[in-house]
Amino acid sequence: MTSSEKYSRMANAIRFLSMDAVEKANSGHPGLPLGAADVATVLFSRYLKFDPKNPLWPDRDRFVLSAGHGSMLLYSLLYLTGYEDMTIEDIKQFRQLGSKTAGHPEYGHASGIETTTGPLGQGVANAVGMAIAEKKLEQEFGSDLQSHFTYALVGDGCLMEGISQEAIALAGHLKLNKLVVFWDNNSITIDGAVSLSDSTDQIARFKAVHWNTIEVDGHDQDAIAAAIEQAHKSDRPTFIACKTIIGFGAPNKQGTHKVHGNPLGAEEIAAARKHLNWDAEAFSVPADVLDAWREAGQRSAGARKAWEDRLAAAPADIRAEFVRRFAGDLPEGFDAAIDAFKKKVAENNPTVATRKASEDVLEVINGLLPETLGGSADLTPSNNTKTSQMHSISPTDFSGRYMHWGIREHATAAAINGIALHGGLIPYSGGFLIFSDYCRPSVRLAALMGIRVVHVWTHDSIGVGEDGPTHQPVEHLASLRAIPGLLLFRPADETETAESWQLALNNKHRPSGLALTRQNLTPVRKTYEQKNLTAQGAYELVSAADAKVSIFASGSEVELAVKAAETLSAKGVATRVVSVPCVELFFEQSDEYRKSVIGTAPVKIAVEAAVREGWDAFIGSDGVFVGMKSFGASGPAKDLFKHFGITVDAVVAAAEAKL
Amino acid sequence: MTSSEKYSRMANAIRFLSMDAVEKANSGHPGLPLGAADVATVLFSRYLKFDPKNPLWPDRDRFVLSAGHGSMLLYSLLYLTGYEDMTIEDIKQFRQLGSKTAGHPEYGHASGIETTTGPLGQGVANAVGMAIAEKKLEQEFGSDLQSHFTYALVGDGCLMEGISQEAIALAGHLKLNKLVVFWDNNSITIDGAVSLSDSTDQIARFKAVHWNTIEVDGHDQDAIAAAIEQAHKSDRPTFIACKTIIGFGAPNKQGTHKVHGNPLGAEEIAAARKHLNWDAEAFSVPADVLDAWREAGQRSAGARKAWEDRLAAAPADIRAEFVRRFAGDLPEGFDAAIDAFKKKVAENNPTVATRKASEDVLEVINGLLPETLGGSADLTPSNNTKTSQMHSISPTDFSGRYMHWGIREHATAAAINGIALHGGLIPYSGGFLIFSDYCRPSVRLAALMGIRVVHVWTHDSIGVGEDGPTHQPVEHLASLRAIPGLLLFRPADETETAESWQLALNNKHRPSGLALTRQNLTPVRKTYEQKNLTAQGAYELVSAADAKVSIFASGSEVELAVKAAETLSAKGVATRVVSVPCVELFFEQSDEYRKSVIGTAPVKIAVEAAVREGWDAFIGSDGVFVGMKSFGASGPAKDLFKHFGITVDAVVAAAEAKL
Repeated sequence: MTSSEKYSRMANAIRFLSMDAVEKANSGHPGLPLGAADVATVLFSRYLKFDPKNPLWPDRDRFVLSAGHGSMLLYSLLYLTGYEDMTIEDIKQFRQLGSKTAGHPEYGHASGIETTTGPLGQGVANAVGMAIAEKKLEQEFGSDLQSHFTYALVGDGCLMEGISQEAIALAGHLKLNKLVVFWDNNSITIDGAVSLSDSTDQIARFKAVHWNTIEVDGHDQDAIAAAIEQAHKSDRPTFIACKTIIGFGAPNKQGTHKVHGNPLGAEEIAAARKHLNWDAEAFSVPADVLDAWREAGQRSAGARKAWEDRLAAAPADIRAEFVRRFAGDLPEGFDAAIDAFKKKVAENNPTVATRKASEDVLEVINGLLPETLGGSADLTPSNNTKTSQMHSISPTDFSGRYMHWGIREHATAAAINGIALHGGLIPYSGGFLIFSDYCRPSVRLAALMGIRVVHVWTHDSIGVGEDGPTHQPVEHLASLRAIPGLLLFRPADETETAESWQLALNNKHRPSGLALTRQNLTPVRKTYEQKNLTAQGAYELVSAADAKVSIFASGSEVELAVKAAETLSAKGVATRVVSVPCVELFFEQSDEYRKSVIGTAPVKIAVEAAVREGWDAFIGSDGVFVGMKSFGASGPAKDLFKHFGITVDAVVAAAEAKL
Repeated sequence: MTSSEKYSRMANAIRFLSMDAVEKANSGHPGLPLGAADVATVLFSRYLKFDPKNPLWPDRDRFVLSAGHGSMLLYSLLYLTGYEDMTIEDIKQFRQLGSKTAGHPEYGHASGIETTTGPLGQGVANAVGMAIAEKKLEQEFGSDLQSHFTYALVGDGCLMEGISQEAIALAGHLKLNKLVVFWDNNSITIDGAVSLSDSTDQIARFKAVHWNTIEVDGHDQDAIAAAIEQAHKSDRPTFIACKTIIGFGAPNKQGTHKVHGNPLGAEEIAAARKHLNWDAEAFSVPADVLDAWREAGQRSAGARKAWEDRLAAAPADIRAEFVRRFAGDLPEGFDAAIDAFKKKVAENNPTVATRKASEDVLEVINGLLPETLGGSADLTPSNNTKTSQMHSISPTDFSGRYMHWGIREHATAAAINGIALHGGLIPYSGGFLIFSDYCRPSVRLAALMGIRVVHVWTHDSIGVGEDGPTHQPVEHLASLRAIPGLLLFRPADETETAESWQLALNNKHRPSGLALTRQNLTPVRKTYEQKNLTAQGAYELVSAADAKVSIFASGSEVELAVKAAETLSAKGVATRVVSVPCVELFFEQSDEYRKSVIGTAPVKIAVEAAVREGWDAFIGSDGVFVGMKSFGASGPAKDLFKHFGITVDAVVAAAEAKL
């Protein structure tokens, strides 16, 4: 057997595993695995630096299947190259409940799945984040410890989604030369030919953002190999356009949209077996082919061993730091530093916007944690995300710790997902809360994957003022709280802001968002307490014996609740106040705690400069809500709070009316 | 005064109105209006076809200020050209509560504001939609009645946002030759120089999607004029890159990010007056300049009159149809047709997925309404959005009524906003509910503007099955219901689907979304009733005297609620069922109606294959919720409903436990 025959059979092993698995599940996407099998074979058998026996080796190359619907391509590769937690039984369980082999690759289901993909365009932006992380860590720890490539395989869908433009423009700008993107250029989408909806010259498009571009026949393995070698030498990221036939090998259906998302059917699979001279039974890989794949899977074992030797030989402090960073553990003293900060705050009780409070906390955090990588989607002066320790990363200098992401919220969020997935860094973004809508698909994926990214979302209500309703979030708190797993913090003052950051960073397996004000707030927590009260999600801030009224509020409305309680109490109406910095954490507390916080006051009022949705869980459907019933308006913030009836007087009046 | 001096002074009028208004408001963005004043002057004084006395003239050119933060540019132009509802007093009220001159242009606040902009990138995609509408209507009604240009002014932010790529790729593909986009290329963003975050060759980028491209000095009015004339002759959309100086005319600050979003200050404004030889007082425009502008505003009055004559001369039926279409009125017989459809459904009571039910209704609607423009973001076979009357629009043939939007949810949603704003057509999109996240910023703007677009969102729960959690919406119903004004329908069967469509189309000033199932549903409404019960948002589907249990459910879970009620009733537990196809409409009903529907049963249960958020408004915080507490999973749909405990048995057990 010639080498070319061998590689061709290796690719066919992917093809038959994929078509057999899709057929058995009676569900799935055979088109991409068949079409991209040659590209994947070249990459995984000759170039990708990975070790199935040590899947988390920090210096492995990263591979992202951005076109996640082609998941059987990845599962086949993991099985064939010898990942121990991907067996042929797992392949047979494709798309069944509880299996590792979900419809789309799910991070955490099996080793070698570097990120969850499926929503198109996300993977390529994850890959950009991974390549940023690599470049940053190489700069920090040296190429002995960190020097690898990031590869992504994208389809037409990934390239049509807007997020891809944000991602590739950024990658080109930053000259991420260790990023290689393969385009499975099969000219087919679900509706039919790509030409129904698109005629982009992708090569020209990538050139316009300064990528190295190469075109190859996606079924010519030697040409693909040559392209990868050329990419390795590039000083810019490389786009390899691979002309492929979707469903390659299915003789009667290939090249059509029929093979994209439907099982081929027994007859066509039989025809493919004949067509590709493949006589192995379903789910069976001929010994010579499996051996060749397993051997390929061990190609980098030596490189991995050499890397471990280099790590062992590194100075003890550097080694310890590298290991800590990739374990995702915070340095000793983190909680103590937050504590000390809280003490200082309680001494001064500053009246500040929580965006400024966040900057103050970050000043402490960034001083202690070299792993934080800050940034903003072009709102640095507004988000207060850049602290004294941070200088900007530029195309020629990755020694900085601050990213100017540009006006690209979506790619920012997806890229910080990629940075967190890569390991070694803790990324946080900056943006306006209103624009969380622009990056919601990536925020959702962070929650689904359970990764630690932090979104600093400032300008969190009509407090935005004159910029008006297009810039004033009213439904965003509710809509973000609806995402399972995400922690949305809306701190009321500097102390709660510090506690929110403490929780965000201590939660290694959850993403967080901080909704912060533009406007100044009077502190509501005036005395130091070591306990992180925000950790319970909601807590009694002002207590009152035999309370007739309970007021629940978050963020900027807590000070208003406190003032209303003072007024009511002065009038003889016993009133308590509950601060609610994190709704999700509250509903994770014990029944007992929740009941005690919600309390038994006959009148329950919630105050939040946002829509009511979600607050009935605190106040019941007969409770009183003081907040927004519509979009906001353009005007000075103080006029708006008055106009929309979110005032101390309104809360007092509502309580009295209800009593 | 030479012509060049005149035009230069006309541009300066924009500049001084803008800097004075921002200064008075002590808030706003002077940078763009000063920088783009020359471009705007050329366009509005020499080329734009518009008539301030007839601002809604259907054949006017459309102008979209995509970089909406530069709103004073637009307000200045509207005042200067003589729109009667934009006075100098309005300019002085810039950014004040209740004024027409909001921080960002708000559709409906004043004539001449063609769309609400501010969230970057939206405007350019709106403009693409407007240009599609024009081309479609020109094809339908002929160029006598419809033949105009669409212009958009974009900034760096618009071009960095991913939505812009989706929009320009589509425009290039469709050869929208009557679309002209000006780029205010000032090299500055909020963080500083554009070069901090981007180095895109925009000309090459637009060429890659087949645009006509031109580069000009954005302060050379003759060059700008020549570029527009060249654009008019192009067979493709035109991108005019205008090199400008941000804050042009503010001698000490221009060209820096200081002028982007802050008032210039009295001193700098005084310096600008000197620098530009402008001796008029604040908010005062020299008579010669105002005259020149007012004259420019009347340039197209003759063209408008000629157009009216052509309309008057058109055959009566065409004229009536054209007028009806632009009034946005539905044709006679629409409600009767839906009624007849409902009757037919009640005769057959088909078990179908609501996506198929939607197709059946659309078959009726599209047969009756020539103004519907359907489409899908590359999920046509899954969304069931293409009916027998519709063939596809292509670059060379706009006689079709169906758009293959490509894998571009965001631009799709923004473009259909543009189509609705243009008038003459009622657009609907197709996509998966999960991907409503990809287009949420545009959906929000539709709600804020109050325009009639309809989103067909299929695959609305874990019923998606094997595609897994990346494709299974669980938080999307809650998050869409949180958007003020949007109507989210989740019909339970074919009858409710027909009623939902009826409401979506009869609501001229609200956007709608239909959340539809992939899986088949048993009908719950089996007898014909003329009244549209969905119009009340929620209604008693199964009644029970002295009910002990009330079950509230929407969409696919209603049949499950009905079965649970049957089981409970058989066991002697009187149980009623409330179908909730539209939460928003329900909360707009009278207190009395709402109370009667919520009822007084001691046990209240809500069932929805989604998160609980929002349902406490029906069942109270002590009610029972049967639904999702986490993301979904990959597996056959029936396994998933069982796994996540959304079954008849679970509802019955929950009711019994609570009793």
